[in-house]
Amino acid sequence: MVKKYLDKISAAAALNKIKNKFGSLRTKSEVIKTADAESRVTAQAVYAKRSAPDFYASAMDGIAVKAEKTAGASERSPVKLKVGSEAQAVDTGDPIPARFNAVIKIEEINKADENHYLIEKGVPPWNHIRSIGESVVKGNLLITAAHKLSDYDLAALLEAGVTEVEVYKRPVVTIIPTGDELVTAEQDPKQGELVEFNSQMIKAALRKWGAEVNITEILADQKELIGRNMLEAAETSNLVIVLSGSSAGRGDFTIDILKNEGEILFHGVNVMPGKPLIAAAVKGIPVFGLPGYPLSAWIDNQLFIRELIYSMQADQAPNFEEIEAEVKRKIPSEIGLEEFLRVNLISDTKNKFTAVPLKRGSSAMESMLKADGILRITANKEGLHPGDKAPVMLLKDRNKIKKDLLLIGSHDLSLDLIKNEIKKRNYKFDLKLQTVGSMAGLTALRRNESDLAGAHLLDPESGEYNISYLKRFFKGQKLLLVNLVYREQGLYLKKGNPKNIKSIKDLTKSNINYINRQRGAGTRVLFDFLLKENNIKAEEISGYQKEEYTHIAAAAAVGRGSADAALGIRAAAEVMDVDFLPLEEEKYDLIIKENRLDDPRINKLIELINQAEIKTEIEKLGGYNCQETGKITKLQL
Amino acid sequence: MVKKYLDKISAAAALNKIKNKFGSLRTKSEVIKTADAESRVTAQAVYAKRSAPDFYASAMDGIAVKAEKTAGASERSPVKLKVGSEAQAVDTGDPIPARFNAVIKIEEINKADENHYLIEKGVPPWNHIRSIGESVVKGNLLITAAHKLSDYDLAALLEAGVTEVEVYKRPVVTIIPTGDELVTAEQDPKQGELVEFNSQMIKAALRKWGAEVNITEILADQKELIGRNMLEAAETSNLVIVLSGSSAGRGDFTIDILKNEGEILFHGVNVMPGKPLIAAAVKGIPVFGLPGYPLSAWIDNQLFIRELIYSMQADQAPNFEEIEAEVKRKIPSEIGLEEFLRVNLISDTKNKFTAVPLKRGSSAMESMLKADGILRITANKEGLHPGDKAPVMLLKDRNKIKKDLLLIGSHDLSLDLIKNEIKKRNYKFDLKLQTVGSMAGLTALRRNESDLAGAHLLDPESGEYNISYLKRFFKGQKLLLVNLVYREQGLYLKKGNPKNIKSIKDLTKSNINYINRQRGAGTRVLFDFLLKENNIKAEEISGYQKEEYTHIAAAAAVGRGSADAALGIRAAAEVMDVDFLPLEEEKYDLIIKENRLDDPRINKLIELINQAEIKTEIEKLGGYNCQETGKITKLQL
Repeated sequence: MVKKYLDKISAAAALNKIKNKFGSLRTKSEVIKTADAESRVTAQAVYAKRSAPDFYASAMDGIAVKAEKTAGASERSPVKLKVGSEAQAVDTGDPIPARFNAVIKIEEINKADENHYLIEKGVPPWNHIRSIGESVVKGNLLITAAHKLSDYDLAALLEAGVTEVEVYKRPVVTIIPTGDELVTAEQDPKQGELVEFNSQMIKAALRKWGAEVNITEILADQKELIGRNMLEAAETSNLVIVLSGSSAGRGDFTIDILKNEGEILFHGVNVMPGKPLIAAAVKGIPVFGLPGYPLSAWIDNQLFIRELIYSMQADQAPNFEEIEAEVKRKIPSEIGLEEFLRVNLISDTKNKFTAVPLKRGSSAMESMLKADGILRITANKEGLHPGDKAPVMLLKDRNKIKKDLLLIGSHDLSLDLIKNEIKKRNYKFDLKLQTVGSMAGLTALRRNESDLAGAHLLDPESGEYNISYLKRFFKGQKLLLVNLVYREQGLYLKKGNPKNIKSIKDLTKSNINYINRQRGAGTRVLFDFLLKENNIKAEEISGYQKEEYTHIAAAAAVGRGSADAALGIRAAAEVMDVDFLPLEEEKYDLIIKENRLDDPRINKLIELINQAEIKTEIEKLGGYNCQETGKITKLQL
Repeated sequence: MVKKYLDKISAAAALNKIKNKFGSLRTKSEVIKTADAESRVTAQAVYAKRSAPDFYASAMDGIAVKAEKTAGASERSPVKLKVGSEAQAVDTGDPIPARFNAVIKIEEINKADENHYLIEKGVPPWNHIRSIGESVVKGNLLITAAHKLSDYDLAALLEAGVTEVEVYKRPVVTIIPTGDELVTAEQDPKQGELVEFNSQMIKAALRKWGAEVNITEILADQKELIGRNMLEAAETSNLVIVLSGSSAGRGDFTIDILKNEGEILFHGVNVMPGKPLIAAAVKGIPVFGLPGYPLSAWIDNQLFIRELIYSMQADQAPNFEEIEAEVKRKIPSEIGLEEFLRVNLISDTKNKFTAVPLKRGSSAMESMLKADGILRITANKEGLHPGDKAPVMLLKDRNKIKKDLLLIGSHDLSLDLIKNEIKKRNYKFDLKLQTVGSMAGLTALRRNESDLAGAHLLDPESGEYNISYLKRFFKGQKLLLVNLVYREQGLYLKKGNPKNIKSIKDLTKSNINYINRQRGAGTRVLFDFLLKENNIKAEEISGYQKEEYTHIAAAAAVGRGSADAALGIRAAAEVMDVDFLPLEEEKYDLIIKENRLDDPRINKLIELINQAEIKTEIEKLGGYNCQETGKITKLQL
């Protein structure tokens, strides 16, 4: 079937089209109180309406004198000045009586008696006297047009008698969310319904950039309805955003509406996420169709709408903070497509950054929450290879990122607890977690993509945890093994155990659907071990091929009924309110390279997990045993 | 006389005292709508309340199928699927009916007839199907405590059913302006009165940092009154700022009040501007006494209050953007005092910055408006020498500063006009002006402190402008001389010329007070020339020693009656509404080093002043002749 958009253009070309068409649009101006004008942009040059000070004023606390009378004063022959006729106490800012022409600082005078000051040093005329207009001079150009007002700009304007100022209005943006399947976040979505939250995300960003934002009701996928609302919005707004429906599905009417009612600048950009973007002009007003996937919408908003919101106020968007980072693994990418990947960053002692990709996909919000930045693979590259460098747009402060610790490995709920404690206690670093499984964690540590790994890998031969795997991954190296917890592994079962599962063997029954963990996960290794121990083949387990990535997700699948059983830790069963059939106690360790033992953050972390208070908290999660938590084993492999 | 504060401490020690005392203070928390929570800081960890999606959903626009039915499909032997029982159209986000387990993209299918699709490529199970919890998983830790919420954080929370979130309240700050001499900006200050504007400046900054700010009425310098208001404010606020009265003048009661009512952390810091700062605790609440000079108050607010406003919300103040810059002249500074100097910055092709100091003084607001940054001279230094480097806290974006042009030289109103036009036309650079006089401008250009100089220096011997001075300053070098304007110089006289001044000779009359321009100003050189031509000695002119720095300031002095006459350009007379007695037409040139001719900004500037429209605007200012404006003369000196 033919797609409705075929003319995809590059990001740079798209941005150029937007700038050429709309770059000189400005909002109307309005006159507001100067006191309220911080961060607003002037529409006209501003001149001082009065001088300040407008009289000769004392610049110090002290006494006003006639300079000539102090000539020759010294410690040995001080000059005596009569209070009133020859000297008068003045504070900073006080006007200087016409008969005086200098001020002596309070520190430099003594009182001879009630009626006389003693001066031990002469002063020149105009000493410590603020000249008229010292601060601002009436008639001077204070601020040009198109200037963004700062806190001290306001001060200067008020001092100069400018109590009102003409500024560009905040751009008014109307956001129109569309989609039959969408409900608001306050509603409880039923089967087939999705929560509409993009409008609030876009609104929050636009407000930060200076816009005023209206969001209409969620509109059904009806061409006439959306068209009417869009035209209405174009009448009352400086910019209109139609959310979802920018692609080529059956309910995607935005492109047809805009073709009829306006001029299409482009439909489709070669960026990923963010491809199905529409830019159009309706009655001279920019109208954007943003894709429904949140990360697509986010990227498009940042790349294509942000600058426009600023330029409409005669302001300039700040540059994105960008760094260059190396990748240490192969990252495939389609040639001709500019790809934006969420990444974690770690920096070495030389301040070089390494980027570690998070889960892809335009709708993986959790991976966005974990990201430090967005790595950009330009359209001319067919992916990246280990050692390649690429630009990364930062989502957090560069200096903050440098201080953080990155743990890649298996998921455990105690890590979430520790991560939260570190934040609550205001340590100077965050603990970032990439939960990709034990094996992937060891691989990442070996590649220096992480500060620590977390693993619970059972050796089926020895029954020992982690050591044999570490020998394979880190031959000849020195490592620290820090025990995090011992924890119960067992089967998640639907509340009340309706299918009466009593052992691992029951999973082979024909009416039982299992859900597995991903390859390389310690829990999957354990499951395979348990199958082998019970002489069960993988093929006998219905659902062995279906994978979840975390304990919580596995427990959730059982709780929802999409599977009857899954293997995982007890704590997740408690969170998701499913039954738990304990099978094993396993060991979960943190793995750290030995040269990192003097890293204060590593020490702080180990010190934290050694606290009795933390151990109690972890054990409260359920199924945890903290007897060896914090115990360090040095390994020479 | 003994000052009330003697225990001044260093900035670092002061900040430490504040952090130790108040660093762990937090505001109370409040529950607000997630949609309104951008930039707010979480008080508790936030967990997902639901998974999203909560059903198997299509990840693409296309058709849902049973993967097994597509096995073996190819272009040569396509598979035919019946609409309804074997295939169903789905859009992105639609639920997958239970009988299907894969989606084929719309681009990859064809319709055989009304009731059948043709498939030319097989797909695996779960192809283009979003798994349950792909975006967020119920029960997962989404966001820790003490996390500042971004736009996409809000999206994830709303998707996960978290419609309300517990955040730290915005700190409430009460500002109490005090001072008998102060009036609001709306009032017209009478002799001896000053406008109170610091409260609005501090408020604008605090709001930007996340606080809610109340400003009380301006209080008279009455100890009991200020004390009562301060105690009331401490009851209802998280932080209190008393403005002015923090020093040791007769009306400065803040220190006495705080000694009685609270605990003094320190009184006085070794910073300049900003010395008379008080920090105290009243009922556990931080109370600051800020100095009355605006730039002192500004510095203290930035250095000592900013971090506290952030930490009260469990947030971290962003680092000041700082660069290192070289100075090319001697800058004196008192040892033991940390000095903050307003500077302009220019950067060379190697991206090294040079800092050029602006006027000092704690109350020179105009110089703050001109500044690019604040240069810091540490307490252990007795000033800086040419070639020394020092840190500069940036007031503008580093990349913007790099693009700007800096002109140092004589003041002319046409330069203000051009500066404003450049902004209005959205050129990619600003023209920054330091108006210090013609001679100082040439000196700065010679030291590479500026991009251009502006001068109108008459050679009394030849009657020629600038050339002979340039020969002295730039011997052996190549320069470009670009004419800016010819302009009328003459005497500013009070409206109606009450003292009947008809010529330069009348200035020697005993009832006439003159006001001069500063040494090195072209206008002063011209005045000296005119005196000489008329055989008048400087001593014969009453007021010859009194100096103003700009035409506007000189005209203002005459308008106000502090002098009877001053020499300057006609345009300033028109702005200040004084009479003007024309004496000479003089030439004002821009001077640029020849190697800058290929600088696109220089070219853009020359192109601009060559525009007829600009020349008309300049001539409208009065007293200007633009016949040679933009004319370039190449000089080999």
